[in-house]
Amino acid sequence: MTPEPPAPEPIGPPDGRRVPRFAAPDTFARLPTLDAVGAAAVAVVGVPFDAGVSYRPGARFGPQAVRAGSKLLRPYHPALGVEPWRVQQVADAGDLAVNPFDIAGAIEAVAAGAADLLGRAGHLVAIGGDHTIALPLLRATAARHGPVALVHFDAHLDTWDTYFDAPYTHGTPFRRAVEEGVLALEASAHVGIRGPLYAPRDLIEDHDLGFATVTTLEVAERGVADALARIKARVGGRPVYVSVDIDVLDPAHAPGTGTPEPGGLTSRELLALLRGLDGVHLVGADVVEVSPAYDHAELTALAAANVVYDLLGLFALQAGRQPAGRRSAGGAPATRR
Amino acid sequence: MTPEPPAPEPIGPPDGRRVPRFAAPDTFARLPTLDAVGAAAVAVVGVPFDAGVSYRPGARFGPQAVRAGSKLLRPYHPALGVEPWRVQQVADAGDLAVNPFDIAGAIEAVAAGAADLLGRAGHLVAIGGDHTIALPLLRATAARHGPVALVHFDAHLDTWDTYFDAPYTHGTPFRRAVEEGVLALEASAHVGIRGPLYAPRDLIEDHDLGFATVTTLEVAERGVADALARIKARVGGRPVYVSVDIDVLDPAHAPGTGTPEPGGLTSRELLALLRGLDGVHLVGADVVEVSPAYDHAELTALAAANVVYDLLGLFALQAGRQPAGRRSAGGAPATRR
Amino acid sequence: MTPEPPAPEPIGPPDGRRVPRFAAPDTFARLPTLDAVGAAAVAVVGVPFDAGVSYRPGARFGPQAVRAGSKLLRPYHPALGVEPWRVQQVADAGDLAVNPFDIAGAIEAVAAGAADLLGRAGHLVAIGGDHTIALPLLRATAARHGPVALVHFDAHLDTWDTYFDAPYTHGTPFRRAVEEGVLALEASAHVGIRGPLYAPRDLIEDHDLGFATVTTLEVAERGVADALARIKARVGGRPVYVSVDIDVLDPAHAPGTGTPEPGGLTSRELLALLRGLDGVHLVGADVVEVSPAYDHAELTALAAANVVYDLLGLFALQAGRQPAGRRSAGGAPATRR
Amino acid sequence: MTPEPPAPEPIGPPDGRRVPRFAAPDTFARLPTLDAVGAAAVAVVGVPFDAGVSYRPGARFGPQAVRAGSKLLRPYHPALGVEPWRVQQVADAGDLAVNPFDIAGAIEAVAAGAADLLGRAGHLVAIGGDHTIALPLLRATAARHGPVALVHFDAHLDTWDTYFDAPYTHGTPFRRAVEEGVLALEASAHVGIRGPLYAPRDLIEDHDLGFATVTTLEVAERGVADALARIKARVGGRPVYVSVDIDVLDPAHAPGTGTPEPGGLTSRELLALLRGLDGVHLVGADVVEVSPAYDHAELTALAAANVVYDLLGLFALQAGRQPAGRRSAGGAPATRR
Amino acid sequence: MTPEPPAPEPIGPPDGRRVPRFAAPDTFARLPTLDAVGAAAVAVVGVPFDAGVSYRPGARFGPQAVRAGSKLLRPYHPALGVEPWRVQQVADAGDLAVNPFDIAGAIEAVAAGAADLLGRAGHLVAIGGDHTIALPLLRATAARHGPVALVHFDAHLDTWDTYFDAPYTHGTPFRRAVEEGVLALEASAHVGIRGPLYAPRDLIEDHDLGFATVTTLEVAERGVADALARIKARVGGRPVYVSVDIDVLDPAHAPGTGTPEPGGLTSRELLALLRGLDGVHLVGADVVEVSPAYDHAELTALAAANVVYDLLGLFALQAGRQPAGRRSAGGAPATRR
Amino acid sequence: MTPEPPAPEPIGPPDGRRVPRFAAPDTFARLPTLDAVGAAAVAVVGVPFDAGVSYRPGARFGPQAVRAGSKLLRPYHPALGVEPWRVQQVADAGDLAVNPFDIAGAIEAVAAGAADLLGRAGHLVAIGGDHTIALPLLRATAARHGPVALVHFDAHLDTWDTYFDAPYTHGTPFRRAVEEGVLALEASAHVGIRGPLYAPRDLIEDHDLGFATVTTLEVAERGVADALARIKARVGGRPVYVSVDIDVLDPAHAPGTGTPEPGGLTSRELLALLRGLDGVHLVGADVVEVSPAYDHAELTALAAANVVYDLLGLFALQAGRQPAGRRSAGGAPATRR
Repeated sequence: MTPEPPAPEPIGPPDGRRVPRFAAPDTFARLPTLDAVGAAAVAVVGVPFDAGVSYRPGARFGPQAVRAGSKLLRPYHPALGVEPWRVQQVADAGDLAVNPFDIAGAIEAVAAGAADLLGRAGHLVAIGGDHTIALPLLRATAARHGPVALVHFDAHLDTWDTYFDAPYTHGTPFRRAVEEGVLALEASAHVGIRGPLYAPRDLIEDHDLGFATVTTLEVAERGVADALARIKARVGGRPVYVSVDIDVLDPAHAPGTGTPEPGGLTSRELLALLRGLDGVHLVGADVVEVSPAYDHAELTALAAANVVYDLLGLFALQAGRQPAGRRSAGGAPATRR
Repeated sequence: MTPEPPAPEPIGPPDGRRVPRFAAPDTFARLPTLDAVGAAAVAVVGVPFDAGVSYRPGARFGPQAVRAGSKLLRPYHPALGVEPWRVQQVADAGDLAVNPFDIAGAIEAVAAGAADLLGRAGHLVAIGGDHTIALPLLRATAARHGPVALVHFDAHLDTWDTYFDAPYTHGTPFRRAVEEGVLALEASAHVGIRGPLYAPRDLIEDHDLGFATVTTLEVAERGVADALARIKARVGGRPVYVSVDIDVLDPAHAPGTGTPEPGGLTSRELLALLRGLDGVHLVGADVVEVSPAYDHAELTALAAANVVYDLLGLFALQAGRQPAGRRSAGGAPATRR
Repeated sequence: MTPEPPAPEPIGPPDGRRVPRFAAPDTFARLPTLDAVGAAAVAVVGVPFDAGVSYRPGARFGPQAVRAGSKLLRPYHPALGVEPWRVQQVADAGDLAVNPFDIAGAIEAVAAGAADLLGRAGHLVAIGGDHTIALPLLRATAARHGPVALVHFDAHLDTWDTYFDAPYTHGTPFRRAVEEGVLALEASAHVGIRGPLYAPRDLIEDHDLGFATVTTLEVAERGVADALARIKARVGGRPVYVSVDIDVLDPAHAPGTGTPEPGGLTSRELLALLRGLDGVHLVGADVVEVSPAYDHAELTALAAANVVYDLLGLFALQAGRQPAGRRSAGGAPATRR
Repeated sequence: MTPEPPAPEPIGPPDGRRVPRFAAPDTFARLPTLDAVGAAAVAVVGVPFDAGVSYRPGARFGPQAVRAGSKLLRPYHPALGVEPWRVQQVADAGDLAVNPFDIAGAIEAVAAGAADLLGRAGHLVAIGGDHTIALPLLRATAARHGPVALVHFDAHLDTWDTYFDAPYTHGTPFRRAVEEGVLALEASAHVGIRGPLYAPRDLIEDHDLGFATVTTLEVAERGVADALARIKARVGGRPVYVSVDIDVLDPAHAPGTGTPEPGGLTSRELLALLRGLDGVHLVGADVVEVSPAYDHAELTALAAANVVYDLLGLFALQAGRQPAGRRSAGGAPATRR
Repeated sequence: MTPEPPAPEPIGPPDGRRVPRFAAPDTFARLPTLDAVGAAAVAVVGVPFDAGVSYRPGARFGPQAVRAGSKLLRPYHPALGVEPWRVQQVADAGDLAVNPFDIAGAIEAVAAGAADLLGRAGHLVAIGGDHTIALPLLRATAARHGPVALVHFDAHLDTWDTYFDAPYTHGTPFRRAVEEGVLALEASAHVGIRGPLYAPRDLIEDHDLGFATVTTLEVAERGVADALARIKARVGGRPVYVSVDIDVLDPAHAPGTGTPEPGGLTSRELLALLRGLDGVHLVGADVVEVSPAYDHAELTALAAANVVYDLLGLFALQAGRQPAGRRSAGGAPATRR
Repeated sequence: MTPEPPAPEPIGPPDGRRVPRFAAPDTFARLPTLDAVGAAAVAVVGVPFDAGVSYRPGARFGPQAVRAGSKLLRPYHPALGVEPWRVQQVADAGDLAVNPFDIAGAIEAVAAGAADLLGRAGHLVAIGGDHTIALPLLRATAARHGPVALVHFDAHLDTWDTYFDAPYTHGTPFRRAVEEGVLALEASAHVGIRGPLYAPRDLIEDHDLGFATVTTLEVAERGVADALARIKARVGGRPVYVSVDIDVLDPAHAPGTGTPEPGGLTSRELLALLRGLDGVHLVGADVVEVSPAYDHAELTALAAANVVYDLLGLFALQAGRQPAGRRSAGGAPATRR
């Protein structure tokens, strides 16, 4: 049996000590484009869509802002002890072209675009856009991995039924996801919930759908480690999709978002929660609801860029735990589990 | 024959020298609500809708911002020599409730809402919202007055056919209006056009539709008086609808808008153009595309509030020229011409 | 004995899933005006006055900003388990018209205006304006309830004697309140004190006046529950007036204020402290010192709107604990205790 | 008769090519303090007072902001052909300490402070603060020079009688000045007037008081030269006081002000008007109503700093036209106080 | 003789009506990269360098901001009657990697980088960065075309000798260019000069170096056409390099810059001046000094993006006037003239 | 032996209750200048230099901004129980004039300027400027006190070797300091480290240099008291230099900085850490990297001003512990230890 040829060294960004980080390219963390490298273990993709927003719009400019905010990222993640784009190839897949005037059409386009990208990338980390996009991303992810355990960081449940009779909005993706069967509900949880609701039945219906909830108050009172223990116990070994609505952060940490709720997590807590997910079986992720017109000094964009960075770190650690021969060099993994 | 009873004195805002202008109410210029006065000669109405926007969204917050910007307005308009809310009753009709997730439905709702308001108000001045709303407002206006001469202040033609196959967007209202027969095309004109286009045929098609155009360059080179002469010659005595996209102003004067184009009109020029329209037969108006998240120090909101104020001044002058017995006290004028 | 007729259902805001929350009306949480409902259990009232400010002015625009920031509020408060405007009628009483050029006159006007409103509303939650307004609000409250226990959230003591020989400023209301006998001093406390003072005697004099103090440092080191225990032990069963200077928050959470002090409470802590006051006998409240010109992305306005929302939740819980027949439908409660 | 000893060379700012202009000191244009030089031909003095403001406050921070905006100024004024602080000693007299809680007291303090400074400085250029301060500055100026011809650049007349019965506000200084006899009314004029008024009688009363008016519209239509000819014909050889409310500029050029009115002068026009005043007998000046919290990128502060620079240039040219022996080295000119 | 094969159609940006303009790629006007197309008639290149700045830094982020501001550009330039990227291939060459800590080294790197790019692109339009970069760009341009006629739009002369003994700064590039012999001085001119100078000799030395000057005042008084006539007469048929310091605009139009001077050109005037240059022999260009941290709502970035667009339009018109066989498809033209 | 004459009372700022704090002078906390008092126990000095910055520049405006942010400071520090400028003379030494175009030259100038000031001031608290300036400040401090224990608050290690081959940048001062022998390495520590690094070896090399590290994560998990215990154990009785990079704060608390890293300390934590240093032998300090163009509502400037205030409080407590006869009245202490 012939040995596998050694995998080529992944291509990373230019060295920030030779090419200033404020210089082009304007890809995520100045990584190569997916077109340039052909395939990747993980691809970062923008989904500039915000027609599903109920209050402040503007998340259509989220991908551009998060990429700009990612320029400060450096190659080594000391808290995770990993070099995310050295372990495996990471690439920027650009933005999905989405019709801003047709929500249903946009959802189809995102689902198709994500499925297409998963032919060239092992996993996707999507940058929204509003939370509507989580639905088609979950579809594409479940098509590959089966129903996924959702770990959903958000101030809001996002399991409302309709707004203005509209089934597809940024407040409804996870009810639709339940209906479509793409979630492993017994393993899914909301994290960071807080703030006013429409009615007591919001919580009841969400619970009846099958979600567990870790509130911001619980994180505040019991700490990050307790929250992590609960989350990890719930997801177990199932494939996990992490969806981060940046409004899970307190508005002081993420002013640039559409439906801010005071009293949220600090960025320190959110990053600790994400890093603590090391060990779960991560298969896909998004960070959504960055609305740059309301941001200041890139606070929100920097936070979101670091969320992506942590997710890439988790993917890298996960890859490092796999036997080398089974590490994805990108493209379509062989099987649907 | 018994004489008409004297019309009641119109109800105006509180006196800014007794109730600080920074105090409530937050209606346009702190005028009474239409509900409070029952009927009005002119009603200001908000249309907080921006799902038709192709670039920067946010005009859904336009009505709120323009009302805030209107607080500085005082009762006497010296350039027109009129007290707009003393001559006749002016009221704030609040906002039309519009579905943000369904453009076609929203257009129906605006048309219905405007028609309904025209049962209680002689004329409407609408505050957008994006330019999509001009279509249903024109429908409602034409239902009362027949096809109207459009005087359209804008950097853009807004007669494109579709974006992303969508017929109803903020770039297409006047092509749809032509198709629906609500415009008196031989009397309609764009004013302030400038900036890049998609193709040479944009201009040709617009011309073939029947519009005349006064470019920003022509205003700059030949002056306001020349532009006014051309506009007034074109509209003649026909009923006139004035639609002001605030991006007709230079971005220095109106940063808070969705598709800014450098090299535009100054607010001084725009106000002079509007005031110079005195004498035309004004039947309806809107000011659109104020996107407050991009505004600074209320520059754009103040400009838009003054546009509304000038339009109300024109309506007041027009009312003053009518025999007193025929002045509208609000509500449905008798006839459709 | 004939049964009481059932109380009419309180009138609430339009449904945010039918009328977009970014649409008018611009009252607090889009609640009805007090004029429209006639009487209310609790009225929210703006006091746009800032002539008492020693550093950054602008709180005159506070009521408008906090109302704008309140649009995101939804009807159900899950942390308190109550629907604040469903339990009882809540209304927006508009703004008190206050002379910006005469501090003493303004104080009289606020006292008179508040007393007048208390003829139509069971309780008031005032939105400032600067902290000067707490004095006349306390006067009006004490006229009804007798001397009140003050729970005062603030970075500053506000018990200085004079500035520039002026007795009435935003730094002196509570010394004047002591002198006027409107406070139950043995039951009053400052919460959140921090930052530089004029002299060591500031603390001594405040203590000699009779106030207790819970510093920000104590909240940080001993936690919210400990602070609450101390506050509740102190106020006991006395009627309580809660005064929230938004600068009790860290500037990161409330940049839009006049005399910011780094190192403050988070909005999470402040909301927890407020919610923990459930059970005290709340009779009146204010939130002051929101200066919107220094705010960003409505951070401060959102925090203040949520403070009001929590206070309304406390009032609703309190109402729910009363025998139904004694619940105030608004207007003057029967007795002065 | 012995010759006068040669005047010492005036002390100027540090050289911006040796000490970066972004470095201290933070005096106007980094000029020496009046205390350091003892006496000056012209002193720049801040008057951080804004309790007379009817809408947006904040001009109390005007002196600090205009000084910061003055750092870019260089020593040679090419349009006037003069080096303002080389021809004669110019100094920064710091700020007058003014009670923010007592308008009448503040006016007395400014009058006294200005009179005191005129014992050490030949002329004053004051930086507001709101327009209330023009009254005491005119008092102090007229005490020395007799009634002065006022050249008043402003969007507003500022000759209203009272607000809220208050006689001293930023909307009333020039009516009070008329009443006090400190103006040469037959020689005084408003320049740049525009925007809504309270009533038609505002104009009539202003005219009856004796002011002439050059509107913004007239400047726009007839040009700067025509306006200058009218102004200079009116003031003749009388001592002239120039008062510049920065809101004479369009909000695009001066967003940072309290009562902005769209449709104003450009900074280019204002500077041309000021420079064109060369030849009048300038005896005092102020620039007021810079409210930095509403400014952006120092637009308004830079404009105001350049207004001061132009005024200093006019003073320098005027000094250059005097026989050298009569040039003021600062301090009290010989006659009429 | 065999005919030339037809030139391939230039590759343009994605259609903004199919791929939203707010979507990636983030190249200038979303044009292809130079790497993707191999060669281009004109390449846009960023030079993110600002170590030569004497006041407000930040132009290092200029290329990123101007690219973001270019997203609104559409393919057809109606004022010039040309489709700039349809006539010939235009591409984005990315950013030159420049050492931020070594001015002299940076100048060498820019000169080398530009020379290298001119092997693949017929002409360059550079986006700064501060004005220091004009020197090496002129070097590279002159190496190809011989000494060039400089048409220099700026508030400042930029012909000072040294600051802090430093020969290479953003205030000195054109004195160095004179010394290096890369300018055709008898054909070079400054346009838009205004504002304070260090000394009268600044103007004399500049004149002695050989530059002509068209001041902002002259543009204001005599108009754009007169200025253009003077400029075009001066440059004649020589190869022309256009250098646009964005501070030639009034700060109202370009707040985001390092050394703003009130009283400048409007963007309307600047664009008219640029468009009027059609017919000169354009060989290179830059737009510099966009400092995004001081920008608002992309005002400055949009203005600069439109400057680039106009320059690309001029290059396209120029190409259209050449015999088709001689049109550059990019890369090195054959000869040095 | 004759007793020492009593030391003169230190001169403090004007009373903020007599001279509004928004009034001049614009020195730190409105303290007297060092020139005015001649000598001081502690001098605050600005170092407006930012040419060593690798990402967002602008710290050259830091001293001006921190001074503006210091205006709110009052004389008594209750957390430390001391009146910092009553115990001993504190003065503002203005800014060091530093060449912005020559990093090496600037470092020499700062070292020389600091050494010179130490002839008139017992200790310096420097306001940057970027972190490059810590090197020459350490040089000057060590020249007086011998190698110092560095307590370095920062998100970053700042012990990199070079960027772009440049040895002197804001990322390298402490490696150079080690090489120059000015640090007591066995007693030095970084506090607040977090965020991505260039490589794992960054940590190893830093450790090998001899630094200890307290990460932000450790402060978060173990608390402020634990961190203080570790720091104080490490520094022991050695002379301590405290260097505070404001980016040790979370971007929510310090948006106005050059290389922000989410997940940082709160201002409450930082101030507690600083106050907890009471008892160490403090000999010098700086606060750096305040970049005002990215600040909002002075958040960062206020935080930095409070850092300086706490440092001045520590110096005052330290002075209070010395025998009165040995208290420095400013100027050169007798001996180098």
